[in-house]
Amino acid sequence: MTEKSKLSDKFHEVLTHEGIVSVMSWGIEPHLVNTWNSFLVITEDERILIPAYGYRITEKNVAVNPHIKLSVGSKNVAGYKNYPGTGFIITGRGSFITSGAEYDMMKEKFDFLTRVFEVTVDKAIQML
Amino acid sequence: MTEKSKLSDKFHEVLTHEGIVSVMSWGIEPHLVNTWNSFLVITEDERILIPAYGYRITEKNVAVNPHIKLSVGSKNVAGYKNYPGTGFIITGRGSFITSGAEYDMMKEKFDFLTRVFEVTVDKAIQML
Repeated sequence: MTEKSKLSDKFHEVLTHEGIVSVMSWGIEPHLVNTWNSFLVITEDERILIPAYGYRITEKNVAVNPHIKLSVGSKNVAGYKNYPGTGFIITGRGSFITSGAEYDMMKEKFDFLTRVFEVTVDKAIQML
Repeated sequence: MTEKSKLSDKFHEVLTHEGIVSVMSWGIEPHLVNTWNSFLVITEDERILIPAYGYRITEKNVAVNPHIKLSVGSKNVAGYKNYPGTGFIITGRGSFITSGAEYDMMKEKFDFLTRVFEVTVDKAIQML
Protein backbone atom coordinates (compact mmCIF):
# COMPACT_ATOMS: atom_id res chain seq x y z
CA MET A 1 0.00 0.00 0.00
CA THR A 2 1.36 3.43 -0.93
CA GLU A 3 0.68 6.70 0.86
CA LYS A 4 -1.78 7.53 -1.90
CA SER A 5 -3.82 4.42 -1.18
CA LYS A 6 -7.57 5.01 -0.95
CA LEU A 7 -8.34 1.42 -0.03
CA SER A 8 -7.12 0.60 3.46
CA ASP A 9 -5.77 -2.67 4.81
CA LYS A 10 -9.10 -3.02 6.61
CA PHE A 11 -10.96 -2.74 3.31
CA HIS A 12 -8.80 -5.53 1.91
CA GLU A 13 -9.38 -7.58 5.07
CA VAL A 14 -13.17 -7.28 4.54
CA LEU A 15 -12.75 -8.78 1.07
CA THR A 16 -11.23 -11.93 2.56
CA HIS A 17 -14.65 -12.62 4.14
CA GLU A 18 -17.70 -13.48 2.06
CA GLY A 19 -20.65 -11.10 1.98
CA ILE A 20 -23.04 -9.25 -0.25
CA VAL A 21 -21.97 -6.05 -2.04
CA SER A 22 -24.46 -3.40 -3.16
CA VAL A 23 -23.95 -1.08 -6.12
CA MET A 24 -26.17 2.00 -6.38
CA SER A 25 -26.64 4.06 -9.53
CA TRP A 26 -29.22 6.70 -10.39
CA GLY A 27 -28.57 8.36 -13.78
CA ILE A 28 -31.99 7.42 -15.17
CA GLU A 29 -33.67 5.52 -12.36
CA PRO A 30 -32.52 4.83 -8.79
CA HIS A 31 -31.17 1.28 -8.91
CA LEU A 32 -29.52 -1.22 -6.60
CA VAL A 33 -27.74 -4.36 -7.71
CA ASN A 34 -25.55 -6.89 -5.92
CA THR A 35 -22.44 -8.96 -6.13
CA TRP A 36 -20.25 -10.83 -3.62
CA ASN A 37 -17.14 -9.70 -1.75
CA SER A 38 -15.24 -12.61 -3.32
CA PHE A 39 -16.09 -11.33 -6.82
CA LEU A 40 -14.30 -7.97 -6.34
CA VAL A 41 -10.88 -7.73 -7.98
CA ILE A 42 -8.74 -4.75 -6.99
CA THR A 43 -6.25 -3.53 -9.59
CA GLU A 44 -2.76 -2.20 -8.76
CA ASP A 45 -4.07 1.35 -9.20
CA GLU A 46 -7.04 0.61 -6.92
CA ARG A 47 -9.86 0.36 -9.39
CA ILE A 48 -12.50 -2.22 -8.46
CA LEU A 49 -13.40 -4.76 -11.15
CA ILE A 50 -16.70 -6.65 -10.88
CA PRO A 51 -17.89 -9.44 -13.18
CA ALA A 52 -21.18 -8.22 -14.69
CA TYR A 53 -24.01 -10.45 -15.80
CA GLY A 54 -27.19 -8.45 -16.11
CA TYR A 55 -26.35 -5.01 -14.71
CA ARG A 56 -28.34 -3.57 -17.64
CA ILE A 57 -30.00 -0.77 -15.66
CA THR A 58 -26.66 0.04 -14.02
CA GLU A 59 -25.17 0.28 -17.51
CA LYS A 60 -27.92 2.66 -18.68
CA ASN A 61 -27.55 4.73 -15.52
CA VAL A 62 -23.77 5.18 -15.68
CA ALA A 63 -23.98 6.08 -19.37
CA VAL A 64 -25.92 9.16 -18.25
CA ASN A 65 -24.26 9.75 -14.86
CA PRO A 66 -21.14 7.73 -14.02
CA HIS A 67 -21.29 8.42 -10.29
CA ILE A 68 -22.07 5.37 -8.19
CA LYS A 69 -21.94 4.27 -4.56
CA LEU A 70 -20.94 0.82 -3.44
CA SER A 71 -21.18 -0.76 0.01
CA VAL A 72 -19.19 -3.70 1.32
CA GLY A 73 -18.70 -4.99 4.84
CA SER A 74 -18.27 -7.91 7.17
CA LYS A 75 -19.38 -8.63 10.70
CA ASN A 76 -16.19 -10.72 11.03
CA VAL A 77 -13.82 -7.75 10.82
CA ALA A 78 -13.46 -5.35 13.75
CA GLY A 79 -14.54 -1.75 13.21
CA TYR A 80 -13.89 1.37 15.27
CA LYS A 81 -13.33 0.81 19.00
CA ASN A 82 -12.77 -2.84 18.10
CA TYR A 83 -16.52 -3.53 17.87
CA PRO A 84 -17.30 -6.54 15.69
CA GLY A 85 -18.24 -5.56 12.16
CA THR A 86 -17.08 -2.93 9.77
CA GLY A 87 -18.26 -1.59 6.44
CA PHE A 88 -17.24 0.83 3.74
CA ILE A 89 -19.15 3.15 1.45
CA ILE A 90 -17.24 3.73 -1.75
CA THR A 91 -18.08 6.69 -3.93
CA GLY A 92 -16.72 6.49 -7.43
CA ARG A 93 -17.42 6.34 -11.12
CA GLY A 94 -18.54 3.28 -13.01
CA SER A 95 -18.01 2.11 -16.56
CA PHE A 96 -18.17 -1.13 -18.51
CA ILE A 97 -15.24 -2.96 -20.09
CA THR A 98 -16.00 -5.35 -22.95
CA SER A 99 -12.55 -6.27 -24.25
CA GLY A 100 -8.84 -6.07 -23.53
CA ALA A 101 -6.40 -7.55 -21.02
CA GLU A 102 -8.50 -6.82 -17.93
CA TYR A 103 -11.61 -8.20 -19.55
CA ASP A 104 -9.73 -11.39 -20.45
CA MET A 105 -8.28 -11.71 -16.94
CA MET A 106 -11.75 -11.34 -15.42
CA LYS A 107 -13.41 -13.69 -17.94
CA GLU A 108 -10.81 -16.30 -16.98
CA LYS A 109 -11.84 -16.03 -13.32
CA PHE A 110 -15.60 -15.58 -13.83
CA ASP A 111 -16.75 -17.32 -16.99
CA PHE A 112 -20.36 -16.20 -16.52
CA LEU A 113 -19.61 -12.50 -17.05
CA THR A 114 -20.80 -10.63 -20.14
CA ARG A 115 -18.95 -7.40 -19.30
CA VAL A 116 -16.69 -6.10 -16.54
CA PHE A 117 -18.04 -3.32 -14.36
CA GLU A 118 -15.13 -1.05 -13.47
CA VAL A 119 -15.28 1.34 -10.53
CA THR A 120 -12.76 4.18 -10.27
CA VAL A 121 -12.71 4.99 -6.57
CA ASP A 122 -13.03 8.62 -5.49
CA LYS A 123 -13.42 7.96 -1.78
CA ALA A 124 -13.70 4.94 0.51
CA ILE A 125 -15.21 5.80 3.88
CA GLN A 126 -15.09 3.33 6.75
CA MET A 127 -18.54 3.73 8.33
CA LEU A 128 -18.14 1.85 11.61
CA MET B 1 -46.75 -17.47 6.24
CA THR B 2 -50.04 -16.52 4.65
CA GLU B 3 -50.82 -16.54 0.94
CA LYS B 4 -50.51 -12.78 1.00
CA SER B 5 -46.96 -13.01 2.30
CA LYS B 6 -44.44 -10.83 0.46
CA LEU B 7 -41.48 -12.12 2.42
CA SER B 8 -40.71 -15.73 1.55
CA ASP B 9 -39.33 -18.47 3.73
CA LYS B 10 -36.05 -18.00 1.88
CA PHE B 11 -36.00 -14.34 2.85
CA HIS B 12 -36.44 -15.34 6.48
CA GLU B 13 -33.71 -17.98 6.10
CA VAL B 14 -31.29 -15.29 4.87
CA LEU B 15 -31.92 -13.32 8.05
CA THR B 16 -30.69 -16.23 10.16
CA HIS B 17 -27.22 -15.65 8.64
CA GLU B 18 -25.19 -12.54 9.38
CA GLY B 19 -24.44 -10.10 6.60
CA ILE B 20 -24.53 -6.47 5.60
CA VAL B 21 -27.78 -4.81 4.52
CA SER B 22 -27.87 -1.75 2.27
CA VAL B 23 -30.62 0.86 2.29
CA MET B 24 -30.86 3.24 -0.66
CA SER B 25 -32.81 6.51 -0.65
CA TRP B 26 -32.73 9.42 -3.08
CA GLY B 27 -35.34 12.10 -2.24
CA ILE B 28 -32.76 14.88 -1.94
CA GLU B 29 -29.44 13.18 -2.62
CA PRO B 30 -28.66 9.60 -3.67
CA HIS B 31 -27.64 7.88 -0.45
CA LEU B 32 -26.61 4.45 0.75
CA VAL B 33 -26.47 3.34 4.37
CA ASN B 34 -26.00 -0.02 6.04
CA THR B 35 -27.16 -2.26 8.84
CA TRP B 36 -26.80 -5.98 9.61
CA ASN B 37 -29.12 -8.88 8.80
CA SER B 38 -29.37 -9.62 12.53
CA PHE B 39 -30.71 -6.11 13.19
CA LEU B 40 -33.79 -6.55 10.99
CA VAL B 41 -37.02 -7.22 12.87
CA ILE B 42 -39.99 -8.37 10.81
CA THR B 43 -43.43 -7.49 12.15
CA GLU B 44 -46.50 -9.76 11.88
CA ASP B 45 -47.75 -7.65 8.98
CA GLU B 46 -44.34 -7.87 7.28
CA ARG B 47 -42.98 -4.43 7.83
CA ILE B 48 -39.20 -4.35 8.39
CA LEU B 49 -37.99 -2.49 11.49
CA ILE B 50 -34.36 -1.33 11.65
CA PRO B 51 -32.64 0.31 14.63
CA ALA B 52 -31.46 3.72 13.39
CA TYR B 53 -28.46 5.58 14.73
CA GLY B 54 -27.38 8.25 12.29
CA TYR B 55 -29.53 7.68 9.18
CA ARG B 56 -29.90 11.48 9.01
CA ILE B 57 -29.62 11.74 5.22
CA THR B 58 -32.00 8.77 4.85
CA GLU B 59 -34.43 10.66 7.10
CA LYS B 60 -34.20 13.83 4.99
CA ASN B 61 -34.58 11.80 1.81
CA VAL B 62 -37.68 9.85 2.85
CA ALA B 63 -39.33 13.04 4.13
CA VAL B 64 -39.33 14.20 0.49
CA ASN B 65 -39.70 10.81 -1.25
CA PRO B 66 -40.54 7.78 0.91
CA HIS B 67 -39.54 5.21 -1.72
CA ILE B 68 -36.47 3.20 -0.82
CA LYS B 69 -34.68 0.06 -1.94
CA LEU B 70 -33.03 -2.38 0.41
CA SER B 71 -30.74 -5.30 -0.35
CA VAL B 72 -30.04 -8.30 1.83
CA GLY B 73 -28.45 -11.64 1.05
CA SER B 74 -26.25 -14.50 2.14
CA LYS B 75 -23.79 -16.74 0.36
CA ASN B 76 -24.82 -19.45 2.86
CA VAL B 77 -28.38 -19.81 1.54
CA ALA B 78 -29.01 -21.56 -1.77
CA GLY B 79 -30.52 -19.50 -4.58
CA TYR B 80 -32.10 -20.55 -7.87
CA LYS B 81 -30.89 -23.87 -9.31
CA ASN B 82 -29.50 -24.54 -5.86
CA TYR B 83 -26.41 -22.39 -6.48
CA PRO B 84 -24.82 -21.14 -3.25
CA GLY B 85 -25.94 -17.64 -2.41
CA THR B 86 -29.16 -15.74 -2.66
CA GLY B 87 -30.22 -12.14 -2.26
CA PHE B 88 -33.30 -9.97 -2.26
CA ILE B 89 -34.01 -6.46 -3.43
CA ILE B 90 -36.87 -4.97 -1.46
CA THR B 91 -38.73 -1.98 -2.80
CA GLY B 92 -40.80 -0.16 -0.25
CA ARG B 93 -41.48 3.02 1.64
CA GLY B 94 -39.51 4.23 4.62
CA SER B 95 -40.45 6.27 7.67
CA PHE B 96 -39.11 6.92 11.14
CA ILE B 97 -40.74 5.90 14.41
CA THR B 98 -39.76 7.81 17.53
CA SER B 99 -42.22 6.54 20.13
CA GLY B 100 -44.82 3.91 20.88
CA ALA B 101 -44.89 0.16 21.45
CA GLU B 102 -42.73 -0.79 18.47
CA TYR B 103 -40.19 1.88 19.34
CA ASP B 104 -40.03 0.55 22.90
CA MET B 105 -39.69 -3.06 21.72
CA MET B 106 -36.82 -2.09 19.41
CA LYS B 107 -35.11 0.12 22.03
CA GLU B 108 -35.17 -2.86 24.37
CA LYS B 109 -33.31 -4.98 21.81
CA PHE B 110 -30.99 -2.27 20.44
CA ASP B 111 -30.21 0.28 23.13
CA PHE B 112 -28.03 2.36 20.76
CA LEU B 113 -30.92 3.38 18.48
CA THR B 114 -32.20 6.95 18.36
CA ARG B 115 -35.16 6.15 16.06
CA VAL B 116 -36.64 3.13 14.36
CA PHE B 117 -36.50 3.06 10.57
CA GLU B 118 -39.67 1.34 9.35
CA VAL B 119 -39.94 -0.13 5.86
CA THR B 120 -43.35 -0.96 4.41
CA VAL B 121 -42.60 -3.60 1.79
CA ASP B 122 -44.10 -3.18 -1.67
CA LYS B 123 -42.14 -5.96 -3.34
CA ALA B 124 -39.41 -8.41 -2.42
CA ILE B 125 -37.63 -9.84 -5.43
CA GLN B 126 -35.30 -12.81 -5.09
CA MET B 127 -32.46 -11.89 -7.45
CA LEU B 128 -30.52 -15.15 -7.70
